[in-house]
Amino acid sequence: LKVILIGSGNVATHLGSALMRSKHTIVQVFSRSESAAKKLSRKLKCGYTTDVLSISSKADLYIIALRDEAIEIFLSQFPVTGKPIVHTSGSVSMNVFKKKFKDFGVFYPVQTFSMNREVNFKTVPICLEAGNELTKKKIQALAKSISSSCHFIDSKQRKQIHLAAVFANNFSNHLLVIAENIMAHQNISFDLLRPLILETAMKVQAKSPQDMQTGPAMRGDLAIIREHLKMLEGKPGFKKIYRLISESIAEKNGIRF
Amino acid sequence: LKVILIGSGNVATHLGSALMRSKHTIVQVFSRSESAAKKLSRKLKCGYTTDVLSISSKADLYIIALRDEAIEIFLSQFPVTGKPIVHTSGSVSMNVFKKKFKDFGVFYPVQTFSMNREVNFKTVPICLEAGNELTKKKIQALAKSISSSCHFIDSKQRKQIHLAAVFANNFSNHLLVIAENIMAHQNISFDLLRPLILETAMKVQAKSPQDMQTGPAMRGDLAIIREHLKMLEGKPGFKKIYRLISESIAEKNGIRF
Repeated sequence: LKVILIGSGNVATHLGSALMRSKHTIVQVFSRSESAAKKLSRKLKCGYTTDVLSISSKADLYIIALRDEAIEIFLSQFPVTGKPIVHTSGSVSMNVFKKKFKDFGVFYPVQTFSMNREVNFKTVPICLEAGNELTKKKIQALAKSISSSCHFIDSKQRKQIHLAAVFANNFSNHLLVIAENIMAHQNISFDLLRPLILETAMKVQAKSPQDMQTGPAMRGDLAIIREHLKMLEGKPGFKKIYRLISESIAEKNGIRF
Repeated sequence: LKVILIGSGNVATHLGSALMRSKHTIVQVFSRSESAAKKLSRKLKCGYTTDVLSISSKADLYIIALRDEAIEIFLSQFPVTGKPIVHTSGSVSMNVFKKKFKDFGVFYPVQTFSMNREVNFKTVPICLEAGNELTKKKIQALAKSISSSCHFIDSKQRKQIHLAAVFANNFSNHLLVIAENIMAHQNISFDLLRPLILETAMKVQAKSPQDMQTGPAMRGDLAIIREHLKMLEGKPGFKKIYRLISESIAEKNGIRF
């Protein structure tokens, strides 16, 4: 397919690279930032523009990989309404296209991308949604060419997946930040926790996290919980999180303190 | 070294196997549960006993891998007081040995162990503490023979590492349980989140989690946060956690909603 990428951030970069590796042609990159547009266009060996009105109308598919808030603004300015167009957001409804476009859909990769880490797109689940059969077939073929995990998911369910992903990724990461803070406060290297963090994630690759739950709250070990709360006295924010999650673990597992 | 293992749970099993692989001799396994003692003794090709008074006095080191609460009870009954003895707990002070023993220490592996998962002990950080020079040298040599990450850490700091590990492992896992619940409620496979969970852990193997923080709270995206809170209306426990962690992320990063 001939694809035009709207955006130059992490999703645009990794998705563009995966498409290129699967022999699709990236025709052009659009970004409001000239430096970012230029950089990505070099990587994808294609043209670029920073002007919405200069985006080529000669592509088979337009993929919007912008921040959620920027999608509607872009669509209101974008003049090419007769071509298939998708966005890559977990939380923006497909209805965002309805007023102005005919062939539209969603192409949401359930993964976290960062600039300097390669991602094996073959394992990245892609949630697809399409407004009609034509778009459905087109984006399914595209998704299958880069990933072995493609799923048709409607906007309502996609939002739930995105919410679950916030817990699994963003919130988990914040707990790692708290752990890092506790270690730094003692001048102990965060390296001591890194194998534990990796193993925690490895364990749930085959098993249910419910079956992997351990720790003081799971054992109903009130002595340790009290000691931990005391250790967190100077950090009221961390203490509140400790207490709430411990209560939640206990409640979920029928543990009484 | 000739080692006797007190306990037959995950830590005893994995530590025993690692010691055996490094050519140490496990002389005997002690456990109150005969079936567990027998099972582990077969694995480690050694004897076993379920009677504290029948534990052999002919070992170079006694390693207690029991639940925290069981350590003191065991020590009060254990008659072999003249040999080096360590426990493997993150949160029990080394002072637990003081009254009765002369050569004692701590041998705390910072990892989560489960029955059916092999662990590469070489990468497991081991926190060591010793009551005297003799024990120090002995357990350091032992630790170095199975792991390339050995650290002398006092009881106070070890408790802080254990607290950080509760956030990084137990609490993170609970967030995965919540994510799994949200997915199950929609009849969507948890598989869609597994690559994301692995990548979240992989990212912080080289970087600081603070630099990896993303998500609605980090962006100050109040519209999405409000929508998520609304989606969690029927789950007050999850909603409280969502709100508290979002506030904590925002506070930590100077984001105002």
